[in-house]
Amino acid sequence: MSLSMYQASIPAFVQMLNNLSAILDKADAHARNREIDPEVLLNWRLAPDMLPFARQIQIAADLAKGAVARLAGVEVPKYDDTEKTFAELKARLAKTATFVQSFKPSQIDGSEDREISLKLGEHAMSFKGQPYLVHFVMPNFYFHCTTAYDILRHCGVELGKRDFIGAI
Amino acid sequence: MSLSMYQASIPAFVQMLNNLSAILDKADAHARNREIDPEVLLNWRLAPDMLPFARQIQIAADLAKGAVARLAGVEVPKYDDTEKTFAELKARLAKTATFVQSFKPSQIDGSEDREISLKLGEHAMSFKGQPYLVHFVMPNFYFHCTTAYDILRHCGVELGKRDFIGAI
Repeated sequence: MSLSMYQASIPAFVQMLNNLSAILDKADAHARNREIDPEVLLNWRLAPDMLPFARQIQIAADLAKGAVARLAGVEVPKYDDTEKTFAELKARLAKTATFVQSFKPSQIDGSEDREISLKLGEHAMSFKGQPYLVHFVMPNFYFHCTTAYDILRHCGVELGKRDFIGAI
Repeated sequence: MSLSMYQASIPAFVQMLNNLSAILDKADAHARNREIDPEVLLNWRLAPDMLPFARQIQIAADLAKGAVARLAGVEVPKYDDTEKTFAELKARLAKTATFVQSFKPSQIDGSEDREISLKLGEHAMSFKGQPYLVHFVMPNFYFHCTTAYDILRHCGVELGKRDFIGAI
């Protein structure tokens, strides 16, 4: 099978969204075992001007849903950032994985030259589909997944690289 | 242009290796301005059982060179992990980027089904080229790039997401 815009994105998103969900289970168990208020972990940051754990998860999920919707040329669904518990963040990841998996290869493939426009706050960006996926979405997606993992490791949650990469 | 094994890997590696090099300049300047011994930053870890900053950079570079060599079916060059300064780590990144860029698309494209075998310590792994790239190399590569960035942010180096993503 040839690599394609679908093959380079959807399976990677689904794998990592599921890995994050399993990581959230371990964080939840860690908080219970140590009698840590889950909010402490959900709000932990690696630096005062970095985003907290819960936002890292929300943004990772949003990068996945935004990428597939934009590459397919459909409207990006809006999910409110209201999650206050590990269970709610797991539901956000599951909803995102279901959305991402609802796309067929034929909706994503051939999107290399599709014009993609997005706004980050006040900052408007435009790309072709391929550099959008390769140079913007994937590094950003893995950035937020990794930073979520790094926050939990920094807080002592027992995780290893295999939790991040998952079963291949 | 169609997405291909080359287009999904080499340009992403080169972009991020160059971004890391610029990030190292900022870390070096930060250490000088604050009179921090560079070794303190190079050896910083987010948790006692995580790898230090310098190893994150070395491993990110090794993932890039290992991926292109294995996908092209050539021997993976061995670089010793001897870097002790920001300048030496920048040289490692530059050497890696030069190696990665020495490959032509025709050497990498069509490697989706190539049999890839590697050993991680005692652990032998085998993949087809496409899942090796999509599910092993890219998440691992960005994991180590992000963790390097996160260590520096945690240590107060003035960096922002734009330093990580670079100019697209």
